[in-house]
Amino acid sequence: MNQKKEMKNYTKILKDLDKFRDKDFTFASGRILGSMCTQPHPIAKEAYMNFLETNLGDPELFPGTREIESRFIKLVSDLLHAPTNSAGQNVSGGTEGNINAIWLAKNLTGKKEIIIPERAHFSFKKIESLMDIKIISVKLNENYCVDAKAIEDKISNKTAAVVGLAGSTELGTIDPIPELSDICLDENIFLHVDAAFGGFIIPFLKKLNYNVTDFDFKLKGVSTISIDAHKMGYSAIPLGTLMMRDNKWLDEISVESPYISSNKQAGLLGTRSGGPVAAAYAVSRLLGLEGYKNLVQRCMDTTKYTEKRLEEIGLSLAIKPTMNVLGVKLKNLTKVTNKLFEYGWRVNKIDRISCIRIVLMPHVKKEIIDEFIPDLEKACMEVGEL
Amino acid sequence: MNQKKEMKNYTKILKDLDKFRDKDFTFASGRILGSMCTQPHPIAKEAYMNFLETNLGDPELFPGTREIESRFIKLVSDLLHAPTNSAGQNVSGGTEGNINAIWLAKNLTGKKEIIIPERAHFSFKKIESLMDIKIISVKLNENYCVDAKAIEDKISNKTAAVVGLAGSTELGTIDPIPELSDICLDENIFLHVDAAFGGFIIPFLKKLNYNVTDFDFKLKGVSTISIDAHKMGYSAIPLGTLMMRDNKWLDEISVESPYISSNKQAGLLGTRSGGPVAAAYAVSRLLGLEGYKNLVQRCMDTTKYTEKRLEEIGLSLAIKPTMNVLGVKLKNLTKVTNKLFEYGWRVNKIDRISCIRIVLMPHVKKEIIDEFIPDLEKACMEVGEL
Repeated sequence: MNQKKEMKNYTKILKDLDKFRDKDFTFASGRILGSMCTQPHPIAKEAYMNFLETNLGDPELFPGTREIESRFIKLVSDLLHAPTNSAGQNVSGGTEGNINAIWLAKNLTGKKEIIIPERAHFSFKKIESLMDIKIISVKLNENYCVDAKAIEDKISNKTAAVVGLAGSTELGTIDPIPELSDICLDENIFLHVDAAFGGFIIPFLKKLNYNVTDFDFKLKGVSTISIDAHKMGYSAIPLGTLMMRDNKWLDEISVESPYISSNKQAGLLGTRSGGPVAAAYAVSRLLGLEGYKNLVQRCMDTTKYTEKRLEEIGLSLAIKPTMNVLGVKLKNLTKVTNKLFEYGWRVNKIDRISCIRIVLMPHVKKEIIDEFIPDLEKACMEVGEL
Repeated sequence: MNQKKEMKNYTKILKDLDKFRDKDFTFASGRILGSMCTQPHPIAKEAYMNFLETNLGDPELFPGTREIESRFIKLVSDLLHAPTNSAGQNVSGGTEGNINAIWLAKNLTGKKEIIIPERAHFSFKKIESLMDIKIISVKLNENYCVDAKAIEDKISNKTAAVVGLAGSTELGTIDPIPELSDICLDENIFLHVDAAFGGFIIPFLKKLNYNVTDFDFKLKGVSTISIDAHKMGYSAIPLGTLMMRDNKWLDEISVESPYISSNKQAGLLGTRSGGPVAAAYAVSRLLGLEGYKNLVQRCMDTTKYTEKRLEEIGLSLAIKPTMNVLGVKLKNLTKVTNKLFEYGWRVNKIDRISCIRIVLMPHVKKEIIDEFIPDLEKACMEVGEL
C-alpha cells in the first residue's frame, strides 16, 4: 500500500472508531452516576502513552519503569502505614488484588475457607468458582456493616482468611476493621481488607476531620489491603495495588519464570504495561497528598449537596453516607431506573435493598446534580413513587 | 495551586519520567532480542488513548466500545476457523487466557488434573499454585515437541484437560495438535491450545506456503485457543483473546455481578479498559489479513537471514525454526550472555537446553542483526566458545 493511501485509511479508521465512541456514555457528560471509575487526570493519559510499550512482567528490560513502580508503591505503602518490611504489588484492579490476597492466604495456611461480609464485591464469587474456596457469608447489621462478633462466631480451624470492607461496593460503608484486627490477631487469622474503592478516600477523610473507622496497617491484625488508583486515585485503568504486611509472603504467590530476564514472577498476570503505573505515579506527583485531599473534599461537598437536594424532593437514603456513595431508597426501583435511563442517566440498582446507588466521583459536579434532580423527581412522579 | 505553577509542575514531572524511561531498553533501539512483545503500531497508540477511560467490565455504559470488541472477536474467530456458536473473550494476555481455559475445563469436568508439555509457559505453574490443579508434565521429543502418544498414555478418568502449544515460548515449536485433537475427541477430553505467540503467525505462515501443523478449530477436538494480539498482532498490552468452541461455556466462568449495569460477568478480571481492544481493532483494520501476512513474511525473512549469519560465524541452532524464534546453542551460555549484556544486548537464556533464544519480532530489522552478529562473535571468542 502506498503511503498516501495508508494515511487516508489511518484517518478513516480513527474516525470510524469515533463513531462507535459516540454511542458510549462518557464521564465528561456527567451522565454516569453509578460507576466507581472516572476520567483519568490529563497527566495520567500523557504518562501512560509514554510508557505504553514497557512490560513490567519482564522488568529487567525496563529498569527505569521498575523504579517508577517502586516509587509509586512506596507512596501507597506510606499512605496505608505499611511496615518497612511490607511488600506491594501492582495489579490490574480490585478483582486481581482480592484474588492474589486469597491465593496468598490459602497457600500460607493450607486452608480453603474464607469468611466475608454478605455484600462483598462479586470478585469473591469468582474466587469461589476459580479456586474452590468455600465462602462463608455473614449477614449485615442495620448500618450495612458486618458485626465483628458475627465474623468471630464463624472462625474455625478451617479458616484461611477473614475479609473486611473499607468502602463497600454497595454503599461505601466501612466494616469494624479495628475489632476484626483484634480478633484476627488473637486467633492468628489472616485478615484481608478490600479497600479498592475506599483506599484513596479514607486517609483523606481523616485529614479532613471526618470521623471514620481505621482500616490500615496501623492495625496490627491487618494482613493485606487492596487499593485501586484507577478509582479515587484519579488514574487510569488498569491499576490497583495489593499491599502485604510481610515481603516474604510474595514468595507464596511466585513461580519460576524461564524465558524472561528475571528468575521469578509474583502474582497472577504475566505481561503488563508500565503505562498505568507511570500514569498513577505522575498523578501522585502532581496532586500530592494535598491534591488528593482537595479531591475528596470536593466529592464530599457534592455528596452533601446531593443529599440535601434529594431530601428536598422527598426521597430518603438507606443510611447516612460514610463517603461519596449514596443509596437512594425507592419502592418502585426498576420503574424509576428505567425512566432515568430514558432520560439519558446511568445509575446502578441495588435490588437487595431497593436502592439506586449514586457515586459522587470527581466527574459528577454540582451542576450535573442540578440537572439530575428534576429528572429524578419527574421520573418518581410519573411512576407514582412521589 | 495556581494554573501557571501547576503547568510548570506538569511539564517537570513528565520530564522526570522521561529520565526514568532513558534507563529502559527500548524496542526501537533493536537491542531487545528476546522478548515476544514489540512496539505497538502507531494507530494502536492513538486508538488506545481515545478509548482509555472506557470500561468493558461495565459494558452497558459503553455500548459503542462493546461493539468494537465484538468486531475484533469476530476477526479472531474467523482467523481461527471457530464455529458460529463459538464465543471469544478478550483478556489481558496469555496467562489470563490459560487460567480461564483451565478454570473452564475444571468446572465443566469437575476434575483437577491437566496434562501439559514439559516446556509449557510458566503460567501453568501459577495455575497449579492458584487453583490446586495437579499438573502432569510430559517430556519432549528430539524436535522439542510433545509426542501425542506420550500425552495419550497419561490420560485417565481424572483428566480435566490436555494442553498443546502452538508456538511454544521456548522455541516457537508447534505440538502435534491434529493428533491431540483426534485423541481428545475419541476420549472426550477438553483440549486447550496455547497459541498466545503463534496465533497471529501460523495462519499467515500457511498463506505463505510454509509447511506448518494445523492448530485451530478446524480440528474438531480443539476446545479453546488463547491468542495474543499484543504479541505478533502488532497491538498494545494488555490484549489477548480466549476463543471457546461453545458459547454456552461462558456460563461456567461467569458470576452474577451486582452494582454494575449488566447481570453477569464472565472471566477473571473486572474493570478493564476498552483502550487495548480499540487498539487491536484499529490495527486489524489498517493491516488487514494481507498486512499481517506481510509482517510475518518480513519476520521470517529476518529469521532466515539471522540463521545464515549465525552459521557463518560457526554457531548452530537447537532445531530448524518453525517460526521467528531461534535457539542458538552455546556451551558457555552464561558467560556469553553476560558479555552480550555488557555490549548492551538483551537476549533470553534457556538454561534447560543451553541456548539463547532470539525472537525476530517486527522491531528486529536486518540492520540490527548486522550489528549483533559481530558482537556475538566477539563475545564467543572472548569466553572461548569459538
